[in-house]
Amino acid sequence: MRRATQRDVARAAGVSQAAVSMVLSGGTSPSISTETHERIVKAAAELGYTPNRFAQALRTSRTMTIACVVPDISNPFYPALMRGVQSVTDGENYDLIAFNTDGTPDRERHFLAWARQGRVDGVVGVFFTLRASDFRPLVESGVPVVRIESSKKQGGPIAIDDIYVDSRAAAEAVTNYLTSRGHTRIAMVAGRGGPQGTRVEGYKAALLAAGGTPHVVIVDEFSEAGGLGAAETVLASGYKPTAIFAANDLMAIGVMQALRERGIEIPGEIAVVGFDDISAAKLVTPPLTTVTQFQRDMGVKAAQILMHRLRGPRGEAGTAIEMPFGLIERNST
Amino acid sequence: MRRATQRDVARAAGVSQAAVSMVLSGGTSPSISTETHERIVKAAAELGYTPNRFAQALRTSRTMTIACVVPDISNPFYPALMRGVQSVTDGENYDLIAFNTDGTPDRERHFLAWARQGRVDGVVGVFFTLRASDFRPLVESGVPVVRIESSKKQGGPIAIDDIYVDSRAAAEAVTNYLTSRGHTRIAMVAGRGGPQGTRVEGYKAALLAAGGTPHVVIVDEFSEAGGLGAAETVLASGYKPTAIFAANDLMAIGVMQALRERGIEIPGEIAVVGFDDISAAKLVTPPLTTVTQFQRDMGVKAAQILMHRLRGPRGEAGTAIEMPFGLIERNST
Repeated sequence: MRRATQRDVARAAGVSQAAVSMVLSGGTSPSISTETHERIVKAAAELGYTPNRFAQALRTSRTMTIACVVPDISNPFYPALMRGVQSVTDGENYDLIAFNTDGTPDRERHFLAWARQGRVDGVVGVFFTLRASDFRPLVESGVPVVRIESSKKQGGPIAIDDIYVDSRAAAEAVTNYLTSRGHTRIAMVAGRGGPQGTRVEGYKAALLAAGGTPHVVIVDEFSEAGGLGAAETVLASGYKPTAIFAANDLMAIGVMQALRERGIEIPGEIAVVGFDDISAAKLVTPPLTTVTQFQRDMGVKAAQILMHRLRGPRGEAGTAIEMPFGLIERNST
Repeated sequence: MRRATQRDVARAAGVSQAAVSMVLSGGTSPSISTETHERIVKAAAELGYTPNRFAQALRTSRTMTIACVVPDISNPFYPALMRGVQSVTDGENYDLIAFNTDGTPDRERHFLAWARQGRVDGVVGVFFTLRASDFRPLVESGVPVVRIESSKKQGGPIAIDDIYVDSRAAAEAVTNYLTSRGHTRIAMVAGRGGPQGTRVEGYKAALLAAGGTPHVVIVDEFSEAGGLGAAETVLASGYKPTAIFAANDLMAIGVMQALRERGIEIPGEIAVVGFDDISAAKLVTPPLTTVTQFQRDMGVKAAQILMHRLRGPRGEAGTAIEMPFGLIERNST
């Protein structure tokens, strides 16, 4: 059966093709009455006509849509980052969609396959498990990628761009800040691998350099519940920490809950530091000392680089741009 | 110029079409070496071949993707809702993408136009400004829509489904709870229209019924900053509230910050109640009394209804399913 065309719909509804196009693309016009509008929609439905859909994308190969890939949409760090991205894509008339991967290999790979089906013009995101080479088919199919990383990685042959905060240096700064205040028994709570692994490295290096003995508790869930459980493990361990450094704020807040439940004074008995500066960090009691990655600025910068790629030569070598971090001292230390 | 086909790529790379398909869809196989992989990608790039892209969608008219539309991805209420949706779509092998609209008429209309381009198979979301009839073209093009609402709305001729919490009843319950504890001077802080408007109606009705005089401060931003500014307005007004009810938790937390800055004791001098039960609500000091809408459960239910539509008859009349709310009493009251 022949697919119904816009002309067929115009004929059936007794209107111009322009009117059909206007109505079926979701537009309105003072010159099209409600009755005409409904007649067009009805004719299209009866004829099984679907407006251009992919035809236009096939012609132009543009979707005017950018994907923002995040490991955990429930961690307020990522919506803040996405807000930064959107402030740029809005101005350039791109739509932005978010894709949540849980940071697992399966889902991150699945996203690549999904994106290769011509659904988006560009990608900006945080990937925990993919290597630069994994992005090659996507990039070579014409979809530029900007990664947000936790260390300098780019420099290989793939034309993707990275922006990164030096997470290792940031974790060293936190540890040095704590040792400079007299702490030597500093425990760390972190997830396995990814940016959190990098933070653990920085913590270990700085604590060893200061003569301390690192003590790391690895959690499966980078959440308040994960932090709470990890704090209980630390307290049961005999390490007797005077400070606990959590690799993100959600876990730090869980650590604080565990300490409060046991009547342990913060920071008098145990100081707590987080990482990310999510909005809850300043709302808890005591307000949490943490590291900001200026996530909104990171989102803005990543999107600007992506827009540059979309306008400019796609093949040029990838860049890696370092972004600042900042230690925010509040009352938990 | 003829578009390059998968066969052309296979011939140029000296491999089977199956190998081309595997590699270009983002897959890997032990039987395909890295060199073969690279040869296929190179051949595809040289021939300008783009894998099926929209061709498959044109054939099947299925994208296997669901859009979750939210007014504010930065408000933790919505990521929690989205987690519920994703728990269902995951199990049904649909991908889920999030679309942030800021709840403005322009962006909500723009989403409709975007969705009509065959990018998604179904929509679940929170819309602040669209009416049921606005969804007609999208629904009649074969994309079912499930709305998450703040009152019973569905019942018209459009085959869309609603789930809703009775926000008016919830606001009445909060107000009755406060009056039952002796408060009569209860101020409300809320945004204009949408679900927040419904909450204001419930508050006014209940407070008037209890013999009180409503006092509402309307804010433009439904955020901590909005709540902070509104609290200052309330305190400067001469209304002398003994309780402040904010139409969401973010604003309630802003109200608490304003009170704390002025040394006003919570709840001793002024009690505070929020709405939503975001995770920060239990972390602030004192922990915030609020209303939960069981957002994860709402997301699950909305997605289940959408899946039913995707499998079943599309034309049947829309449903409206009421979901429960719960008052969570903490120490801010």
